[in-house]
Amino acid sequence: MPVWFMRQAGRSLPEYRKARSGTAMLDACLDPDLVAEITCQPVRRHGVDAGIFFSDIMVPLKLAGADVEITPGIGPVFSSPVRSRADVDALTSRQIDSIDVIVEAARACCTELDGTATPLIGFAGAPFTIAAYAAEGRGSRDHLAARALMHSDPEAWHRLAAWAADLAIAFLRAQVEGGARAVQLFDSWAGALSRSDYRTFCLPHSRRVLQTLRADGVPTIHFGTGTAHLLVDMRDAGATCVGVDYRTPLDEAAALLRSDNQVNHSCGPVILQGNIDPALLACPRDALHAHTRDVIERGRRADAHIVNLGHGIPPTTDPQVLTDLVAFIHDLPAGTLASPEGM
Amino acid sequence: MPVWFMRQAGRSLPEYRKARSGTAMLDACLDPDLVAEITCQPVRRHGVDAGIFFSDIMVPLKLAGADVEITPGIGPVFSSPVRSRADVDALTSRQIDSIDVIVEAARACCTELDGTATPLIGFAGAPFTIAAYAAEGRGSRDHLAARALMHSDPEAWHRLAAWAADLAIAFLRAQVEGGARAVQLFDSWAGALSRSDYRTFCLPHSRRVLQTLRADGVPTIHFGTGTAHLLVDMRDAGATCVGVDYRTPLDEAAALLRSDNQVNHSCGPVILQGNIDPALLACPRDALHAHTRDVIERGRRADAHIVNLGHGIPPTTDPQVLTDLVAFIHDLPAGTLASPEGM
Repeated sequence: MPVWFMRQAGRSLPEYRKARSGTAMLDACLDPDLVAEITCQPVRRHGVDAGIFFSDIMVPLKLAGADVEITPGIGPVFSSPVRSRADVDALTSRQIDSIDVIVEAARACCTELDGTATPLIGFAGAPFTIAAYAAEGRGSRDHLAARALMHSDPEAWHRLAAWAADLAIAFLRAQVEGGARAVQLFDSWAGALSRSDYRTFCLPHSRRVLQTLRADGVPTIHFGTGTAHLLVDMRDAGATCVGVDYRTPLDEAAALLRSDNQVNHSCGPVILQGNIDPALLACPRDALHAHTRDVIERGRRADAHIVNLGHGIPPTTDPQVLTDLVAFIHDLPAGTLASPEGM
Repeated sequence: MPVWFMRQAGRSLPEYRKARSGTAMLDACLDPDLVAEITCQPVRRHGVDAGIFFSDIMVPLKLAGADVEITPGIGPVFSSPVRSRADVDALTSRQIDSIDVIVEAARACCTELDGTATPLIGFAGAPFTIAAYAAEGRGSRDHLAARALMHSDPEAWHRLAAWAADLAIAFLRAQVEGGARAVQLFDSWAGALSRSDYRTFCLPHSRRVLQTLRADGVPTIHFGTGTAHLLVDMRDAGATCVGVDYRTPLDEAAALLRSDNQVNHSCGPVILQGNIDPALLACPRDALHAHTRDVIERGRRADAHIVNLGHGIPPTTDPQVLTDLVAFIHDLPAGTLASPEGM
């Protein structure tokens, strides 16, 4: 029964903290040997069924020369937020000169993973989430600056989002060239949008990323948080598999997508990823296991299910809890589960 | 056509920044003359149709002697987060000695508002949001500490939430005693919960607050953000009026509540508050007015509609935009709109 975790490579692991010690986040992401080491750590320790390319959604922007850093405790910080048409022009004039370091890093991951025959999954930030960071200058709760830009100057917004989509395509294709066998598009902040704004201002750009990769023959996973109202659109954007956050039970997500299939005569299978509540990782084992069984039971309503968390691993998580959880899931009787290649 | 705004008394107004200058937030909330002055400022300037009691959701905790402060730029900060059963015991042993200062402050507001015959609306934080702050020690995105406490030690969680409900009841009743004619319960963070967790761990406590006030004859408004999946439960908790955030169109919210009425044979009218997107306040006037017309048009699908924002006023908002928006709304042809007393 396949399982992997969002943020499985990261601060919950002592070997990660040791490997990263003294190296800034974005520097670490541009060091192929370090990327391979960190990507493989959770595969070695937990026995998860995929390695997730260790990187950051800001890496393609950094490669394009954007003035962005990852500040510990805050996240991405832009020295000059993008608020005006001139700001958009300045940022979007930047292009990636060479993506070779990403190809090389992905290749190093695959070489390292090869011994265990574990596939590598690539990832990138979705255009809205990238553009929202750029407009606000950092993370925020409401993404007011990004949402104001959409409605104040739709043309400038679309140019910014299209640029972010181009970077995401280049970033994902480099990972695929290096050997990644599926890709995840993270739209962390999409839940801040109304469905109407998502469809008008964001979906076309995410669709271009996902459909480009699908045309390349690569299965795609599309994830955001607080996106119960957007799940149909996120699937229609071109997702082979929809990642569901912990708020929406998988049986409800499956029913929603299936009823939309019937109404709109879509024909793809309903493939879901998710959605063990990360809060349960800090609870007694009995509560975590009962919850995990419930998630897997509800996931049987989908045509296929990849077991994952409903959001990233909290940094304070005891790694042994994760190792034991993987074993627990692997020991459960198999339902209809997806493999990265078989999506 | 009645309209008021969440956070209408606050940092968007220069007269507020002047009045608050040199006074800490929680101290300001315990100074009846200052509360009355700040509560009345947006009524004077914008001509809104209600004064909203100037306070903070942490005020009742402060009155009970909890070790909480409002840190500028961060929000409420507890010196010791509530993580264990012993922590819950320690916090919930604290009770409010005297609530007279709140009665006095509300009375001062009503005296001041009396000249304009403008009603006062009271407010309090909902038990989940209060308990989530206490468990995390401050605001957070996922409220992992609170959600872990629910599942780790449900009994301790329920004791914490019941204590928060007792404080909210005392706080709201004091405002009503001072003259408030309706009350709002803010569950700012409820959208972080799955529907199942909301129903099991939070709804019973919010219901006790709302139904106590309704039994007192006071109309209630119940608001949270990202709560599209919880609107039926938030109404069923005992809300006369459901506040809808900017993500859910009012016609969809009305249809959802109405269809639930039909299924469950509820008989109350569908009364909505909302939901002009605060991001539009920073956009050209044409875009804001077109959006406002759309909100009001969709609101006609409810039995009654109170015009408001879909979240609080951003501190950077130009106050003239708000003044003009109130005039624009007042000039629109009236639909079926609620008055605070008539809800």
